[in-house]
Amino acid sequence: MSEIFNIKLDKSSDTPLYRQLSDKILELIECRTLKPTEKLPPVRKLSEELGVSLVTAINAYKFLENKKILYSQVGSGTYVSSITINDLPEPIPKAGFQIHETIEFNFKNAINFAKSSPNANLFPVDEFKLIFNNVLERDKGDAFSYQDAQGYPPLREALVSYLLDFGIKTSEERIQVISGAQQGIDILSKAMLSSNDVVFVEKPTFYGAIGAFLSRNAQVIEIELESDGMNVEKLESYLRIYNPKFIYLMPYYQTPTCISYSIKKKNKILALAQKYNTYIIEEDNQCEFTYSNEKIIPLKALDYKNRVIYIKSFSKILMPGLRLGFMVLPKKIIENVTNAKYVTDISTSGFIQRAFTEYLQGNDFKKHVSKMKEIYKNRYEATIRVIDKYLLQYVDYKKPDGGVNLWLSFKKNVDVNKICEELLFHRIIVTPGDIFSKDDHSFNSIKISFADLECKDIEIGIQKIGEYLCTVM
Amino acid sequence: MSEIFNIKLDKSSDTPLYRQLSDKILELIECRTLKPTEKLPPVRKLSEELGVSLVTAINAYKFLENKKILYSQVGSGTYVSSITINDLPEPIPKAGFQIHETIEFNFKNAINFAKSSPNANLFPVDEFKLIFNNVLERDKGDAFSYQDAQGYPPLREALVSYLLDFGIKTSEERIQVISGAQQGIDILSKAMLSSNDVVFVEKPTFYGAIGAFLSRNAQVIEIELESDGMNVEKLESYLRIYNPKFIYLMPYYQTPTCISYSIKKKNKILALAQKYNTYIIEEDNQCEFTYSNEKIIPLKALDYKNRVIYIKSFSKILMPGLRLGFMVLPKKIIENVTNAKYVTDISTSGFIQRAFTEYLQGNDFKKHVSKMKEIYKNRYEATIRVIDKYLLQYVDYKKPDGGVNLWLSFKKNVDVNKICEELLFHRIIVTPGDIFSKDDHSFNSIKISFADLECKDIEIGIQKIGEYLCTVM
Repeated sequence: MSEIFNIKLDKSSDTPLYRQLSDKILELIECRTLKPTEKLPPVRKLSEELGVSLVTAINAYKFLENKKILYSQVGSGTYVSSITINDLPEPIPKAGFQIHETIEFNFKNAINFAKSSPNANLFPVDEFKLIFNNVLERDKGDAFSYQDAQGYPPLREALVSYLLDFGIKTSEERIQVISGAQQGIDILSKAMLSSNDVVFVEKPTFYGAIGAFLSRNAQVIEIELESDGMNVEKLESYLRIYNPKFIYLMPYYQTPTCISYSIKKKNKILALAQKYNTYIIEEDNQCEFTYSNEKIIPLKALDYKNRVIYIKSFSKILMPGLRLGFMVLPKKIIENVTNAKYVTDISTSGFIQRAFTEYLQGNDFKKHVSKMKEIYKNRYEATIRVIDKYLLQYVDYKKPDGGVNLWLSFKKNVDVNKICEELLFHRIIVTPGDIFSKDDHSFNSIKISFADLECKDIEIGIQKIGEYLCTVM
Repeated sequence: MSEIFNIKLDKSSDTPLYRQLSDKILELIECRTLKPTEKLPPVRKLSEELGVSLVTAINAYKFLENKKILYSQVGSGTYVSSITINDLPEPIPKAGFQIHETIEFNFKNAINFAKSSPNANLFPVDEFKLIFNNVLERDKGDAFSYQDAQGYPPLREALVSYLLDFGIKTSEERIQVISGAQQGIDILSKAMLSSNDVVFVEKPTFYGAIGAFLSRNAQVIEIELESDGMNVEKLESYLRIYNPKFIYLMPYYQTPTCISYSIKKKNKILALAQKYNTYIIEEDNQCEFTYSNEKIIPLKALDYKNRVIYIKSFSKILMPGLRLGFMVLPKKIIENVTNAKYVTDISTSGFIQRAFTEYLQGNDFKKHVSKMKEIYKNRYEATIRVIDKYLLQYVDYKKPDGGVNLWLSFKKNVDVNKICEELLFHRIIVTPGDIFSKDDHSFNSIKISFADLECKDIEIGIQKIGEYLCTVM
């Protein structure tokens, strides 16, 4: 096994270290120096012996595990699989995202600033238990029959009322129920995009959306965000050249930058969409969590020309595992979208839709949102307090007055990925900025979320980040 | 309103009557002869006045309702919307499917031979109620956290055991959990197909699969089915020309023809997939319901070269509203498929996965399958008995000895769609053969299913079909 410790890596190479390492391990397997079922050294030992970071070693193992070249046994270690070498799969383009996700799962005891959904112990489980029972008593087997692809009609009606609180007036026939925001983006891509169609997105933006657009072979064009929204001059100059099928954006507490759009920019972008005959996909997953007294005005509430497709998910507000959200659609695209939903998965679970209808119509939903908002507001205030205390000499950031994330930009140019890797040593997880763009990986920023952390852990974590930055900046 | 009764339709035209009728109604609306909020005549009266079938009138109204040009109020009637005419949407290519689906929903009191999932009163609702409670007691909020995109690990382990009963040996890392078979097909399309890639399908085959492939701009090539499976000479001759990404097929109780593949053809097709380096997507949704003593051998059980992607849905066996199924994947494509699942909807509901794991591991699942099999066997026998009694002079059919459908081919050339429309007058719903092909609409056959019908209704329905056919053949 000692051959593995003789691996030499080239730190100046363009190939990431973990890929160099995984390639070298693969060579050792291919030449049978490492044999099937043989145990590999623990990641910590490997990282020390090779002088690479822990996360490089982890990622190299994970990469080979994903390809089933290695396998790991909980509490025991990592082993070489008994596979046929000539049966190896193709390289996977999106390995970066996957590995990033995996890291989050591998550090259960770390302070996790990467998770932006609430802790499971805050979910309204007891309320749902009661509702599930009531729904099954009332609807019996019908709760598990095929459901209309557009969604359970009483839920669509309840959502119409719910939207009035945000100034959005619509009708139930414009609502399409979906299994979460990501599915909404995927279905819209299917309904609206063909190969080489153009879409505009914010830069930076949520990688899951980029993935869905690229999977339809769309051309994704990124437009810089400013502190009050997309750069509208750039937007218009691009609109003159390209003919995008839609512009995807998040006007409140944008992922990852946490900026919100000014009313002026909202109106300008709506006017541009009308002028250049395109649609806007507005994603909203955190509007409920505003900590100032300013009124929330979604783009959809200003949309008199039917240019906005509004996507709402309840993953961050309620619980991600519900897999439920909805879209408000302009009339012209409803039928295409419902057809796309049908070929995607026929329909969203009627049982979950029925339960959520009850929940939304009772008092529990509003009570839950108030409770979560209070908790998040406390965490938000705790976070900015300790950032101001420990990090202000290293980072700049805006206070978004809402949402569950903060976007910290380093004052000096740093190797953000290296910082994120090194922080893992200290059992702190943050999200590097570079995964929020299609191909520009130069963001000198990290995203941190306080959604799943108690105030005391927030303070410990931010303090540790400060102590670490002090040694490198 | 009487102008609507003066509409003239051209029965010799290639344009379907309902589209001619909807176009004429639209003209009346556009020239304000029919005014916003004006009530339209009832469909029965319209069909009598114009001398067209009831279903033509219904479809014309439904077509305009889908476009929001008309709207209907339950118990009151159909009205002209107050819409802006120049805001009318584009025609929808897949209107045929939609309308067919709609018909099923509009005849709740008819004898419905089109529905192939069980009646809601046969669903194991009480068992699931108990399990939902237990799962929430045990896992609390974790049941609603984000779930691994590949699926809840204990469910994947339980599925490995379950598959052993069908001679399929696999491991949990090869299993991808999905929200039903349609999602499986959609995700595979996303993971494996680019524009103009070729896929082979059976002719006829399930229209939802064709829809998913076409939505990726794939070239769909249809290969004739014989009584023991796909025409393998034709398959090989096409394999010499094309390079399909996969061959999609259902080796048992195929939809819609109900044929099953001979072991010889299964082995031949596996060998061809290996020789020509392609994959086979095997969909199985009714293997449990075999009424003979012959052993069920899925293609996947014979798949020593890892050429088969096995898709299993529990919609027909258990309840469609569960939205749960799984795939067994060749090693090479796992990572791409899991990435495609992630961009599609992140993951299938962890709560439903947890509940189904409990159900599958207890005795209830096997008991339920036995019960359903006995019920279906009775219905199957009742159906073939009355077909042999009432329909043999009009149709040919094979007895599949399994599944929930029968495929009846008319002895004489008939207008199948007209027959299906006319049967609706008699409150009998059957599925016309022509929706099961991409562009060949010449199938002289209908599909009937006995899944949701009591034996007495089966006899009444088949007898009525016989009486009707007697008047036209």
